[in-house]
Amino acid sequence: MRDLQHRADGSLKHLISIEGLKRDEILRLLDQARALMPGSEPPRKLPLLRGRTVATLFFEHSTRTRSTFELAATRLSADVLHLDVKTSSTSKGETLLDTLATLQAMHIDLFVIRHPVSGAAHFFAQHAAPGVSILNAGDGRYGHPTQALLDMYTIQSRKAPDNDFSRLTVAIVGDVQHSRVARSAIYALNTLGVGELRLIGPKTLVPEAFEDLGARISGSLDEGLADADVVICLRLQRERMKGAFLPSEREYFRRYGVTAARLKKAKPDAIVMHPGPMNRGVEIDSAVADGPQSVILDQVRNGLAVRMAVMATVLGSPVPRPNLEGAGA
Amino acid sequence: MRDLQHRADGSLKHLISIEGLKRDEILRLLDQARALMPGSEPPRKLPLLRGRTVATLFFEHSTRTRSTFELAATRLSADVLHLDVKTSSTSKGETLLDTLATLQAMHIDLFVIRHPVSGAAHFFAQHAAPGVSILNAGDGRYGHPTQALLDMYTIQSRKAPDNDFSRLTVAIVGDVQHSRVARSAIYALNTLGVGELRLIGPKTLVPEAFEDLGARISGSLDEGLADADVVICLRLQRERMKGAFLPSEREYFRRYGVTAARLKKAKPDAIVMHPGPMNRGVEIDSAVADGPQSVILDQVRNGLAVRMAVMATVLGSPVPRPNLEGAGA
Amino acid sequence: MRDLQHRADGSLKHLISIEGLKRDEILRLLDQARALMPGSEPPRKLPLLRGRTVATLFFEHSTRTRSTFELAATRLSADVLHLDVKTSSTSKGETLLDTLATLQAMHIDLFVIRHPVSGAAHFFAQHAAPGVSILNAGDGRYGHPTQALLDMYTIQSRKAPDNDFSRLTVAIVGDVQHSRVARSAIYALNTLGVGELRLIGPKTLVPEAFEDLGARISGSLDEGLADADVVICLRLQRERMKGAFLPSEREYFRRYGVTAARLKKAKPDAIVMHPGPMNRGVEIDSAVADGPQSVILDQVRNGLAVRMAVMATVLGSPVPRPNLEGAGA
Repeated sequence: MRDLQHRADGSLKHLISIEGLKRDEILRLLDQARALMPGSEPPRKLPLLRGRTVATLFFEHSTRTRSTFELAATRLSADVLHLDVKTSSTSKGETLLDTLATLQAMHIDLFVIRHPVSGAAHFFAQHAAPGVSILNAGDGRYGHPTQALLDMYTIQSRKAPDNDFSRLTVAIVGDVQHSRVARSAIYALNTLGVGELRLIGPKTLVPEAFEDLGARISGSLDEGLADADVVICLRLQRERMKGAFLPSEREYFRRYGVTAARLKKAKPDAIVMHPGPMNRGVEIDSAVADGPQSVILDQVRNGLAVRMAVMATVLGSPVPRPNLEGAGA
Repeated sequence: MRDLQHRADGSLKHLISIEGLKRDEILRLLDQARALMPGSEPPRKLPLLRGRTVATLFFEHSTRTRSTFELAATRLSADVLHLDVKTSSTSKGETLLDTLATLQAMHIDLFVIRHPVSGAAHFFAQHAAPGVSILNAGDGRYGHPTQALLDMYTIQSRKAPDNDFSRLTVAIVGDVQHSRVARSAIYALNTLGVGELRLIGPKTLVPEAFEDLGARISGSLDEGLADADVVICLRLQRERMKGAFLPSEREYFRRYGVTAARLKKAKPDAIVMHPGPMNRGVEIDSAVADGPQSVILDQVRNGLAVRMAVMATVLGSPVPRPNLEGAGA
Repeated sequence: MRDLQHRADGSLKHLISIEGLKRDEILRLLDQARALMPGSEPPRKLPLLRGRTVATLFFEHSTRTRSTFELAATRLSADVLHLDVKTSSTSKGETLLDTLATLQAMHIDLFVIRHPVSGAAHFFAQHAAPGVSILNAGDGRYGHPTQALLDMYTIQSRKAPDNDFSRLTVAIVGDVQHSRVARSAIYALNTLGVGELRLIGPKTLVPEAFEDLGARISGSLDEGLADADVVICLRLQRERMKGAFLPSEREYFRRYGVTAARLKKAKPDAIVMHPGPMNRGVEIDSAVADGPQSVILDQVRNGLAVRMAVMATVLGSPVPRPNLEGAGA
C-alpha cells in the first residue's frame, strides 16, 4: 500500500490498517487514549470536535461497533450522522464514489466505514477529498485497526506499562483465517515487538501461510497456551463459514474452547481477551469469560477511549498537553 | 419483588414498575413533572443531564414511545444513543447479559428498555452495574410505569389538584387482560387511594381475578360508566389476540365502543383518556376522541414532562428547588 | 391552493410548494442561503434554532434527502428527531392526523415530511397547529420545493448573479412526467422570469400539457440543447415506470443521454445539473457528470445552505443582518 494514511507532514489523515503505522505512532495513539479514559466520575464531554461532523457509513450491520464510534464522536462534541446505507441511494443504482462525493459535499469531516468487502475502506480513502478523513471500522477480512489498537491498549495497561512487549507471549486462539480482528492484532503486535506470537486452531482455520508473519502455529491448545501472558480468543465466525471447516461446535469446544482447566497451562496471571460478541460454550467457557483473568469488558471500555483518540488525531485536534500530564507510559 | 428500585438511601434508582412506589414518591414525581411542563413559550432546554448518556434499547418497535423518551433526554441535554436491537449482537447469539455488560462498559448512564417478554426490565435491573439506571418502557403484559405516571398526572391536573383521589370513580374500558397500560394504572390508582375503580369489558378480556386488585368488574358499559369522573379507553390489542376472544370489531364497538351517547352516563365533566394509538370506531368514537371531554393530547404532553422528571430523578439530578416554586399541588 | 404557506403578516410558515411564492420571496431565501454558505474553513454552527426541535417524518426512504435536512437542522443547533414512520403507529392503524396531533403535543416545532402521495405535505400543513411548521421534502409527483430552490441558487450563482433570469435558456431533459423535481423547477423558473424553458424527452415522458406552463417541448435532444445556458438532467425514475414507457435503457441513452458530444450543442459555458442519484450511462454520461461543466456537487453543497435558510425562515429566526453583509445579489 502506498502511504495513503499520512499527510505530507507525516500526520495521520486516515486510519485504514495497522500496516503502515510506526511503533511510535501506535504508542502515541495509546497515550492519547489513556489521557481520554474517564476515571470513576461520569465521563466529561470534551469540546475537541465541536462543529465537526462525523458520519457512520455502515454497509453491514454492527450495532455494537457503530455505537462505540457514535459515542466516541459525541463525547468529543462532534455532530453525528448515521447513514443507513442499505436503504440509501446505493440501492437505487448510485455508485459508491457518487455516494462518497455527495456526502463530502455536505461538509462531513470524517467517515467511519464498515463494509463486507476487503479493501473497501482503502478505496474510499483513495478518493476522499483533501479535508476528509476515513476510519476503517472493519472491511471484509482485511482489517479492523481500532480493534487492534484497543487490544494493544489493553495488553499495554496490564502487561507492558513500560512499552516492552518483547517479554510477552501472546496466543491467539480460533478462526484466524476469517478474522479481521486477528489480522490487525498480528500486525500491531509485530510492530510493537512482541516476544512470541502463537496462532492456535485447526489447520482449516489457521493456514500455514501465517508463519510468514512471524507467528508460531499450533494445532494443540495445551501446547499453544503454555506459559502465555495473553490469550486472545476469537469469535467463531459461524456466518462466514459456509464450507465444512469444522466437525461441530461441540467438537470445536472440546478441542479449542478456552476453559478454566485449559487456561491453567498459561501463566497464572495471564489475561484473557475476546473482541465480542462471545459464543459462550463454543470458543470460550463462561467460567473464563466472567473469571478474574478476563479483561473483556476492559476492552470495551478501552475501545471508546481509543476511538476518541483516533478521531481527534485524524481531525487534527489531538488531546491538549495538560490532559496528557500524569498519563502512563 | 425485592426492593430493587431503590438505593440504600431510599432514592429511586430504577423505574421498573409502579408496585413498590409509595404514594408520596409518586406525588413527588408528579410535582417534578409539573415543574418541567413548558408554558406557552417554546420549551427551554435544561442542563440537568449534560454529559450523561441515555440509551434506548428497544426489543420491539414503538416509534412513539421511543420518541418521547429520546425527546425527554434531549430536553435535559443528555446525549442519546438509539440501539436497534433487532439487528444487533443478540441476533449473533450474544446473551442479553453480555449485551448489557458491553453497553455498560461504554459508560451509558441510563437504559430505557422495551421488551416483549414480561419481567425483562426487572431482569436488566437485577444485573445493572451500580452507577446504571434502568427505565421500563413496557415489558410484555407486566408494566409500563411511565404511562401510569402520565395518566396519574393527567387525572391529578384535571380532577384532583389537592391530591385527593378518594372522591374519584375511574372506569377502565376494554382489553384489560392484555394491557400493560391497564395493569400499571390499576396499581397507581390504588396507591393514590382512588375512590372506586371499575374494569369494563367482555369476560374474555376482563378476568374475574382482577377483583383481587380492588376493582369492580362489569360486563356492561352503561353500568360501568355511570357517574364516572374518569374514563380510560384501552387500545384493542388486535395483534395480541390470536384466539377467538372477540366476535368482531363491529360487535365490539357496538357493545364497548365509547361514543358520545354512552359517555352521557358518566358525570357531565368526566374526562376521557386513551394511551394511543387509537383505533377510531373500534374502542372509541371520533366524536369522543376529538370532543371537549377528551384529554388524550394532554396525556402525550404530560408524558414528556413525566419522563423528564423520572430521568432526572433516577440519575440524581432532580429539578432544582427554584423551578419547583409556584408549581401546583 | 389557498395561501396556506403564509402567516397573516405575510411571513413564510410552511414550505409546501414553489407555487404561491413571489419572486422577491424566492430571491430573499436565496440571499439567506448565500449568507449561510460556509467558506473554505469548516462550517460554523449557528445558534439560530437552539432549543427548537425538528422531526423528519419520512413515509418513503431517502437517506440522502433526510441527511441534508438533518444536517441543516443540526448546523442551526436544533435538536433532531428521526421518525421511522414505516414501523410506527401508522402501521398499527392510527390515522395520519392522529400521528401529527401526537407529535405536535410533544412540542416539535418543524416537521420535514416526505410521502409517496401527492398532496400529503399540503394535508399536514392544513392541520398543523399554530406554532408548527411543515416542510415538504417531496410528495408524490407534486412538489419538492427545496430542490427547486437549490437549483435556482445554483443557476443564480453561475448564470444570473444580477437576478436577471430573462437572458437564460434552460433545458430540462428526461422523465418530466414523473418528476417532482421538474415540476418544482418549472414553477420556480417561471416565477423568476426565465427567458426560455425547454422540456426534452419522448412523448410518453413529456406530455404536451406542459406547454401550458410556458415550456417549449421537444422530442430531439440536439434541438432542445441548442444554445442552452443550463441543462438539467432528470433521473430516470425506473421504479416509477411500471408500464411500457420506454424501449430500453440503452435506446434511451442513445436518444436522450447527455454525452460530451451532445452537450456541444449547448453554449460553451453551459452548466449541467442533476438532482442525484445519477444513473450513469442512462440519462447522463460519466464524461459529462465529472466534466468541467458539471455543477452537480455544487447542487448538494447549495442544498444544505438552502435548507438551513428555509428552516430559519419558517421558524422565525432568519439570518441576522450582519451575516448578510457582503452577500451576493
